[in-house]
Amino acid sequence: MSAKVLDREEPNYFGAGPAILPTSVLQEAAYDLISYQGENVGIGEISHRSKPAIKVIDDTKAHLKELLNIPDTHEVFFLQGGGTSGFSSIAYNLIANYAAKTGKKGKGAYAVTGSWSKKSAEEAVRLGFDVDVVVDTKASSKFTAIPPYSEWKPIDAENTSFLYVCDNETVNGTEFQDIPSADYIPEGVELVADMSSNILSKKIDVAKYGLIMAGAQKNVGLAGITIYIIKKSLIEHADDAKLKELGIPLAPIAFHYPTVIANNSAYNTIPIFTTHILKLVLAKLIASGGIEAIQKINEEKASLLYTALDQYPEVYTVPVDPKVRSKMNVVFTLKDDSKDGVFISDAAERKLTGLKGHRSVGGMRASIYNAVSLDSVKLLVEFIHEFAKGE
Amino acid sequence: MSAKVLDREEPNYFGAGPAILPTSVLQEAAYDLISYQGENVGIGEISHRSKPAIKVIDDTKAHLKELLNIPDTHEVFFLQGGGTSGFSSIAYNLIANYAAKTGKKGKGAYAVTGSWSKKSAEEAVRLGFDVDVVVDTKASSKFTAIPPYSEWKPIDAENTSFLYVCDNETVNGTEFQDIPSADYIPEGVELVADMSSNILSKKIDVAKYGLIMAGAQKNVGLAGITIYIIKKSLIEHADDAKLKELGIPLAPIAFHYPTVIANNSAYNTIPIFTTHILKLVLAKLIASGGIEAIQKINEEKASLLYTALDQYPEVYTVPVDPKVRSKMNVVFTLKDDSKDGVFISDAAERKLTGLKGHRSVGGMRASIYNAVSLDSVKLLVEFIHEFAKGE
Repeated sequence: MSAKVLDREEPNYFGAGPAILPTSVLQEAAYDLISYQGENVGIGEISHRSKPAIKVIDDTKAHLKELLNIPDTHEVFFLQGGGTSGFSSIAYNLIANYAAKTGKKGKGAYAVTGSWSKKSAEEAVRLGFDVDVVVDTKASSKFTAIPPYSEWKPIDAENTSFLYVCDNETVNGTEFQDIPSADYIPEGVELVADMSSNILSKKIDVAKYGLIMAGAQKNVGLAGITIYIIKKSLIEHADDAKLKELGIPLAPIAFHYPTVIANNSAYNTIPIFTTHILKLVLAKLIASGGIEAIQKINEEKASLLYTALDQYPEVYTVPVDPKVRSKMNVVFTLKDDSKDGVFISDAAERKLTGLKGHRSVGGMRASIYNAVSLDSVKLLVEFIHEFAKGE
Repeated sequence: MSAKVLDREEPNYFGAGPAILPTSVLQEAAYDLISYQGENVGIGEISHRSKPAIKVIDDTKAHLKELLNIPDTHEVFFLQGGGTSGFSSIAYNLIANYAAKTGKKGKGAYAVTGSWSKKSAEEAVRLGFDVDVVVDTKASSKFTAIPPYSEWKPIDAENTSFLYVCDNETVNGTEFQDIPSADYIPEGVELVADMSSNILSKKIDVAKYGLIMAGAQKNVGLAGITIYIIKKSLIEHADDAKLKELGIPLAPIAFHYPTVIANNSAYNTIPIFTTHILKLVLAKLIASGGIEAIQKINEEKASLLYTALDQYPEVYTVPVDPKVRSKMNVVFTLKDDSKDGVFISDAAERKLTGLKGHRSVGGMRASIYNAVSLDSVKLLVEFIHEFAKGE
């Protein structure tokens, strides 16, 4: 073991997630895994109700509040289980809150704009919730475009708890560029966004959201911890008897937001090492200039890539409508898909890895989350030029 | 950072969980966090569907099968969410399986022998499942004793899916010393055990169990991953329409065993770094002689502690019936509880930490999971003698 070094050559890794994290964060976490703050136990080995663990949770929340400028109207908490558990927990909890406010079951309006929002809507239906699909871009564009809100099915203001969107669709490479205006979303209907693949990549106005949910493993951490930001007025549930009377299934206790929040995200054992890594990533983001700074870099990265790809329409196809192209997941295909393997292997020779597209879309996908450096993107751009010229 | 050393003095830490892990495992994992198998990305930064990640999952399963001699009749899988999520998922899944087999809703028989089994039974009731409490030792003994099976309420053989026990009650310090014989548990009723705090501490006959569930964070890993071992005949569910007809709530998809198993525990993103640590702990256990070896050490550790405590009945009280004393969590109080603070601080001076009892029981608790060394226990025993003699 003495020959090993706790360091690495900076990766040029474009995988869609779990994705790379800053090397300096992983180095610090590696020491903390074995000995935390000079003690001879690591941060993963202590009670989730001990002072150091509570401080990790509180610091992580504070960092999120600072970075996203989260107003006092909103609360931050953490769950296990990633976006998939979020699909279930959002329906359970927001419908239980709607019952508390209205005495009615209520329904969710879902925008189906890619694989993930589709799964979320399907899960709500499966569990027995009422779902209105207000837009479904699979038939119209194979998930490559998002029509303007004015063309979506109107929301049933009288019976709808929330409008659900997936802000960035990792598989399909689309990203919302704005949020629905008051023209589309009626007052009292809450905007819910899955930001698993673009949380903290850009400035957002948290006040406009009822709930934001984001698995950590793409932009901000390891798999195993999920960030929730909820409007405080949405926490309360109707009591269990009322929910049963209305035919609303109860959230399992680990997904039950009021319980989780009342226990500062430690009702059950929070994965504290994973939370600690999230905290370190956020601290680094603050130290590096916060959201404005990273957003600027992310915009430059995306612009460089799309500009290069668009330069060779005879070689590369970018299937996504330029109006909704993701700044996190740059999806492209080769006109001649028999060259896919050559592209991947030539890229690998240049140590550019993780570029294979999702199995459902094919082609290539360059995921350029926060931790993917501008230098990595420049190397990829260089290769995109070279490959095109070699064709 | 160059001044830091990736090492530590061996801890004498007796916390109830998350608990200490072998230093050598954490050291190996620390390197793997930054660079796995010579690549310049860490094991936490790659796709859960990549070859190295799948190999981590498969190796972890193989190690469990080897250590526990798991027969081919059983399957191993992993979920997030610890025991608390297990309480929910067990009820959802086994009742859905019972419906598939019998066309009926069925119920769970619960042995309430401590805080954790109580929570599990309460969660099943809350979610709308039918629960028979076949023994409740709170009233009879404040959870300090377990009557023989012959004194338990008989199981309703015609309508019961499973008998649920918590094999080791971490808070209360009781542990089952045997499993129910055919005299008590009717054929067709499946034995389900929460082994979160004693998994892999002793030999068990997996064939006798329908389901074993165990959060990793006490004996075998970090918080964030939970081990499930299920009899294959219990995987199938009745279809959703049938479940709805019978009034059986559906498992959220992340808790849906058939889906999780069909996707080799990676339907949603498995926390692969946490799984990797579990794998390393298991590999070390195999290399150190397997279950027989660790069971022998664990028995010696528990025997040393209880023997020392029993030697000073005027100083220490061990509330738990000797017939069911836990070999993992040694609960004791001081006759003079005004000395609790002195005991804890004197112990801390000797670098013996994590000894404070659970808030619901008070006094002290020495948790002596697999990674707590015989040397640590000997130091604690020495202190127990000294403290008693000083009184």
